[in-house]
Amino acid sequence: MILTTDVATKPNSFIPPADSRTRVSKLMRDIQDEICLGLEKLDGVSKFREDSWDREEGGGGRTRVLCNGGVFEQGGVNFSEVWGKHLPPSILKQRPEAAGHEFYATGTSMVLHPRNPYIPTVHLNYRYFEAGPVWWFGGGADLTPYYPFPEDAAYFHQTLKQACDKHHPEYYNVFKKWCDEYFYLSHRQEMRGIGGIFFDYQDGQVPFYRGPELTGTAALYSDSIPASEPRTWEELLAFVTDCGKAFLPAYVPIAEKRKKMEYGDRERQFQLYRRGRYVEFNLVYDRGTIFGLQTNGRTESILMSLPPLVRWEYCYQPEPNTPEAELSEKFLKPQDWANWQAA
Amino acid sequence: MILTTDVATKPNSFIPPADSRTRVSKLMRDIQDEICLGLEKLDGVSKFREDSWDREEGGGGRTRVLCNGGVFEQGGVNFSEVWGKHLPPSILKQRPEAAGHEFYATGTSMVLHPRNPYIPTVHLNYRYFEAGPVWWFGGGADLTPYYPFPEDAAYFHQTLKQACDKHHPEYYNVFKKWCDEYFYLSHRQEMRGIGGIFFDYQDGQVPFYRGPELTGTAALYSDSIPASEPRTWEELLAFVTDCGKAFLPAYVPIAEKRKKMEYGDRERQFQLYRRGRYVEFNLVYDRGTIFGLQTNGRTESILMSLPPLVRWEYCYQPEPNTPEAELSEKFLKPQDWANWQAA
Repeated sequence: MILTTDVATKPNSFIPPADSRTRVSKLMRDIQDEICLGLEKLDGVSKFREDSWDREEGGGGRTRVLCNGGVFEQGGVNFSEVWGKHLPPSILKQRPEAAGHEFYATGTSMVLHPRNPYIPTVHLNYRYFEAGPVWWFGGGADLTPYYPFPEDAAYFHQTLKQACDKHHPEYYNVFKKWCDEYFYLSHRQEMRGIGGIFFDYQDGQVPFYRGPELTGTAALYSDSIPASEPRTWEELLAFVTDCGKAFLPAYVPIAEKRKKMEYGDRERQFQLYRRGRYVEFNLVYDRGTIFGLQTNGRTESILMSLPPLVRWEYCYQPEPNTPEAELSEKFLKPQDWANWQAA
Repeated sequence: MILTTDVATKPNSFIPPADSRTRVSKLMRDIQDEICLGLEKLDGVSKFREDSWDREEGGGGRTRVLCNGGVFEQGGVNFSEVWGKHLPPSILKQRPEAAGHEFYATGTSMVLHPRNPYIPTVHLNYRYFEAGPVWWFGGGADLTPYYPFPEDAAYFHQTLKQACDKHHPEYYNVFKKWCDEYFYLSHRQEMRGIGGIFFDYQDGQVPFYRGPELTGTAALYSDSIPASEPRTWEELLAFVTDCGKAFLPAYVPIAEKRKKMEYGDRERQFQLYRRGRYVEFNLVYDRGTIFGLQTNGRTESILMSLPPLVRWEYCYQPEPNTPEAELSEKFLKPQDWANWQAA
């Protein structure tokens, strides 16, 4: 059963402060800055190129892309801050009480495509939305390896779990499962990667899980969430801040370790093939991508998430008992990575 | 104003014959066979590999894929014939009178990705649908060049126009515009290629144009179609038969001419980049692809339309006054190709 705490008992905590927009926007910029600096250090060869852009209806962003690096074949880190009078229909459907209000949205998003197939591709996105009485935080980070190293998956999850645990004992459990639900290619019956955390519609009220657009087992999670106290705007901002800070510690050590591994054409070809799954997910399922494309977003900033080189092969099947076969047979299944132990 | 002729005046002509399914299914198989033979002859190196497959709910298909050929880097020609009790919601919404009836659908579809960037990619699809009192034909063929040769675009259109003109003086005019409407990437404000013909919901009644899911200028076409006599099931079958037969004569001479042209890394890189647009269209907009993926179609048969190798490049801009710039600036705009004349 889902217990919903009465919001009226804590009215002040649920109203964003007067400077909410500038504070979240600064946080999103800070996350972008910190991550770009860390990634340039990791890459060692290339620097990010920045393009600032304006949005006609209101707002704009700064897109940063790094190409042909020492570690990264391509990587993009976006910041954007947009506002306007016309709420997207998808938002209105979700939150009818936002109707008639101007909206404001800010966020940072990132996809990195490393050259070495032993380094996983990684994605991060944190975002904030306001319209009249409605506001929420969303986002997450997830890892898409090409070759199965369970210790890397465990390390990535454990690092994100530490950030979650500082703020609520149930955050990681719920947001880890939400991530498994979201990054799923139903036409392949396959996860996009080994997950991480994902959340949306976090406005401080319980339950944490708000995924009406998700189907299947997601409903189970709602029921499994214990009754808990609502959280304030400040508490959520602090949570998202720590999630953003957890990214470099969660990813950089994995990339540092794997970048030294030698690989050949076989691994490269498998990486290019698996990148096709990333394209399929982003163009067929990802709400942010589809929404952006259909509402005159800046196409080049939205599609910088697509890999620089990709291949498709009809009916490809990896040879049995190879790392390539192990990836989809064993690795890309929901697992309790945070508690993984070497056999 | 749209004039709709009373169907009741010609009742018998609007009921498919008792053997409609076997006859259309045979036509679709024949189109597949004829095209595969013609393409193998053109390719000169590789042959199609055939995979037959069954569909649990009813029906199946035969997928044919040619890889690493002399002309084609990859090409696939599908035939499928499916039936079942559960009508897709998109069909029910379009034709509520089909509710409660079993459905039957058969078709052939094809995408060819040549290796030489001077040879255009090409797509063909013809299909037939029945459910209780409802039936219709749909399909078309369209060309996606990488380098602008207006004489090729004109030749392709003229050949399809000849097939159309044998059956109705307005077919080409309407179906050419419908094709321009359909194969459009709104997030790029760009056509996918130079078009061809496209039609759907052809059940013999007027108006020809039935695109409630299309927006924009499509509405204009409906009004511009003159009142005309309804066409019988037999007349439509004959029309689709001639469209299928027109494919090889419309495409092979272009490929034969261009395959001899030498190209280098510049042209290859541009081809790989432009193939990204094909992926974007098929995964974001193409109704057949999205519908297939979301309804447990055979994924490998649906996605054989994707190119074997693709690249994306952030903010790519061709140099001014090059063939690459001319492609999107001048060539990928709707044009009266059938009446094109060399300057």
